[in-house]
Amino acid sequence: MPLDPYGLRRVVSPRGVLPQRAEVLDPGLSLGEDELAIAVEALNVDAASFRQLEEAARGDPERIGAAVLDIVRTRGKMHNPVTGSGGVLLGRVSAVGPSHPAAGTLRPGDRVVTLVSLSLTPLRLDRIDAVHPAADRITCAGEAILFATGLWARLPTDLPEAVALSVLDVCGAPALVARHATAGQRVLVLGAGKSGALVAVAARERLGPSGRVVLSDRAPAALEAVRALGVADALLALDATDPLSGLAAARDAGGPFDLVVSCASVPGTEMAALLAVKPGGTVIFFSMATSFTAAALGAEGVGRDATLLIGNGFVPGHADLALDLVRRHPALRELFAARHR
Amino acid sequence: MPLDPYGLRRVVSPRGVLPQRAEVLDPGLSLGEDELAIAVEALNVDAASFRQLEEAARGDPERIGAAVLDIVRTRGKMHNPVTGSGGVLLGRVSAVGPSHPAAGTLRPGDRVVTLVSLSLTPLRLDRIDAVHPAADRITCAGEAILFATGLWARLPTDLPEAVALSVLDVCGAPALVARHATAGQRVLVLGAGKSGALVAVAARERLGPSGRVVLSDRAPAALEAVRALGVADALLALDATDPLSGLAAARDAGGPFDLVVSCASVPGTEMAALLAVKPGGTVIFFSMATSFTAAALGAEGVGRDATLLIGNGFVPGHADLALDLVRRHPALRELFAARHR
Repeated sequence: MPLDPYGLRRVVSPRGVLPQRAEVLDPGLSLGEDELAIAVEALNVDAASFRQLEEAARGDPERIGAAVLDIVRTRGKMHNPVTGSGGVLLGRVSAVGPSHPAAGTLRPGDRVVTLVSLSLTPLRLDRIDAVHPAADRITCAGEAILFATGLWARLPTDLPEAVALSVLDVCGAPALVARHATAGQRVLVLGAGKSGALVAVAARERLGPSGRVVLSDRAPAALEAVRALGVADALLALDATDPLSGLAAARDAGGPFDLVVSCASVPGTEMAALLAVKPGGTVIFFSMATSFTAAALGAEGVGRDATLLIGNGFVPGHADLALDLVRRHPALRELFAARHR
Repeated sequence: MPLDPYGLRRVVSPRGVLPQRAEVLDPGLSLGEDELAIAVEALNVDAASFRQLEEAARGDPERIGAAVLDIVRTRGKMHNPVTGSGGVLLGRVSAVGPSHPAAGTLRPGDRVVTLVSLSLTPLRLDRIDAVHPAADRITCAGEAILFATGLWARLPTDLPEAVALSVLDVCGAPALVARHATAGQRVLVLGAGKSGALVAVAARERLGPSGRVVLSDRAPAALEAVRALGVADALLALDATDPLSGLAAARDAGGPFDLVVSCASVPGTEMAALLAVKPGGTVIFFSMATSFTAAALGAEGVGRDATLLIGNGFVPGHADLALDLVRRHPALRELFAARHR
């Protein structure tokens, strides 16, 4: 059997697309030699998808469950046809193909979480046990397939499950920042939410005592929440949707910056990032609200020669790096735990 | 008078925004010491803006001219309120502030073209001489202001004006590729239009004879047009909107590639680029049709660890680099000239 790292042979319709774009996948084919099978315990449905299902079912958990069963039976994946979004799943490894990259490291019974979207993950559901609207979670039994290119992480046993999932959700950001930050740099982080906090801690570790980390947010409460991390040289109240705030940050908080990391959750923050970075510096955009054209044309408009990076969600070792940060920084762990109380 | 590199003092309304976002600019203030004044000869209006003006005026050049005069009188810049787009202008330097970065290099009378959008350039128009619908051009007289951060290029005297403008329009792409390409690499260029051709030539020069340059397009005619350049090791017919075409390119044309450069002019080409690049490689997205989320989530979905760059339109020296490529490669010059016959 030929290797199939992108899962093309499981695409039923339309022909010739990748699994994410497929209308229907076939979870029933026998396991490929570079595939991984997972006995599913729970689906963590994407928030947008769960809200849509909840509204369509008028909040009735039973009807939500029935809708999920119906989608998975029809499409061979939990790919919400209305929102287009997916989520992730938890389960135990049931079989590892001999040519799968994890053949040497994962064994049947290991507990894992998938880091690729349910929108491209072949899935068969045998039953639904419970629907948990507060957690966007569905406990269930079934089987899922991961392709050789599909990302996963071992579920840690020393962290609460909700904390681990929440960290893994944004683990690409601190890993990419750790790759690009170097000792002595001045770093500005826009947005002090989950990914902003992880990024600030990762930057501090990479910079050592010599550099400067400035963590900013427009919400005073968000800044108060990250104060205990103790990694920022300055906490800056700044509305990154005000384009001139980047200039103000550069003036008032020790910039312009070698590295600006946008973790803002709202649109319209590109100019603030571009005006805060120094010529020859780097901006990493993690915000999913980033506009490609606003960033590209904005840099040209103010003549800023900066390297502009799209925050790729995958960096090898990203899950371990992020979980280790949380283990080594009790205040960071507490910050994530507080979000789930 | 304080320096004002972003032109904030010329913003009339709303207060506190950058000139590009401003409703109204004031072109009438006396020249700042870090500003440059240009006696305007012609506006090269953005294609989308010109089409809109043309339709609103039912193709009547006189009415198009009247509309342009009205916009500039109202807004203090040629910023089309319907399309939001601008264009560039040509003229002769009339004054250079002593603190402007070009104070030592530009003199009154020098012929220049602006490389920042008309949508942020303060402009006063005294009269319109002619409207040239075939060239989206308006010959006129007036005065424009460039801020210290505003990009410009000297209009070359040894190239036809239309060729020079056309090259300058996309000069950021070859400059950024020249920065990131290194000897011996395998490079794939998606899209064999103006910027794709410049990028292929820049990559070839940087790689020397050791690397591999593959230039692709879905239109056979586009590939035929770039054959005479003689810089590509392979010309590849490939529809980059088919997500699997990247895999096919990698298989059939000597990939996966160290560097993939997207110059495609249509949406939906992110997956092809991501599947063609090798792990650890780099993708530079120049296409203004690039979707930020499609690139970021697409890379994660196929577990591709690649550096994803937003094609910043400004790289120091970009105008000279691109014009020099055209001077040194007669086939490239002919390619641009053929587009204006």
